[in-house]
Amino acid sequence: MTRVVLAWLIAAGASSTGALPLPDVEIRTLLHDQAEAWNRGDLPAFCAVYADDATFISPSGLTNGRQAVLDRYTKKYVDKAGMGSLTLEVEEVRTLHVDSASVVARWTLVWPDKPKAAGLTLLVLRKTRDGWRIVQDASM
Amino acid sequence: MTRVVLAWLIAAGASSTGALPLPDVEIRTLLHDQAEAWNRGDLPAFCAVYADDATFISPSGLTNGRQAVLDRYTKKYVDKAGMGSLTLEVEEVRTLHVDSASVVARWTLVWPDKPKAAGLTLLVLRKTRDGWRIVQDASM
Repeated sequence: MTRVVLAWLIAAGASSTGALPLPDVEIRTLLHDQAEAWNRGDLPAFCAVYADDATFISPSGLTNGRQAVLDRYTKKYVDKAGMGSLTLEVEEVRTLHVDSASVVARWTLVWPDKPKAAGLTLLVLRKTRDGWRIVQDASM
Repeated sequence: MTRVVLAWLIAAGASSTGALPLPDVEIRTLLHDQAEAWNRGDLPAFCAVYADDATFISPSGLTNGRQAVLDRYTKKYVDKAGMGSLTLEVEEVRTLHVDSASVVARWTLVWPDKPKAAGLTLLVLRKTRDGWRIVQDASM
């Protein structure tokens, strides 16, 4: 674990006196890594944490499957400059079971040359042998 | 169980040869009852299935708690005529555990005197001693 991630987990409340549940820590790490992937312009890595059969909904409609989610992002963000800089702030993680959880987060995109964009997302995740995967995503 | 609900469950695939999992049936019934509450103008009944500490997100922001969700709807829909007629169509139910599930549904509102509105919703539900409760709602 890098020092940056550790500092961020401590800031999020994962101290020895008030430890977050493990799914909470793992999911915060997943979102952190996902934002890092976005910020280096790596859409395949950003989408790698979606389950193969993930369902993604947004005000523009419903997208079925990880590949279609990646295709949607690839079409919308044609280059790294257009993607801007992403921040994901966790509002709440609800641990539903040892292998399932859901999270509400705020996303913010910042560009040097235009106004920032921001919104909310609700993600449902399942833990697989390969780690946590997003099975449903509602982003607006 | 009324004949109408039974016919609707059968139409949804809950036949003896291809039964839906129990949470799936119970959640479809909850959404059916919720739409019925809406369509008789009963916002308190519509919101009764939210958990006390439910989190609701929409493009206009984040709302914390069942009472605040009810207040939001009450402010937005001042009379039954304004509420229109609601249909909720289930796209998918994912059973996460015996006491937790999530559902993607399409909502449609129809009024006699203006264009219809439609959108998508992702709900996370927990089963309590009082039945299933919506703990997170992302509607757009």
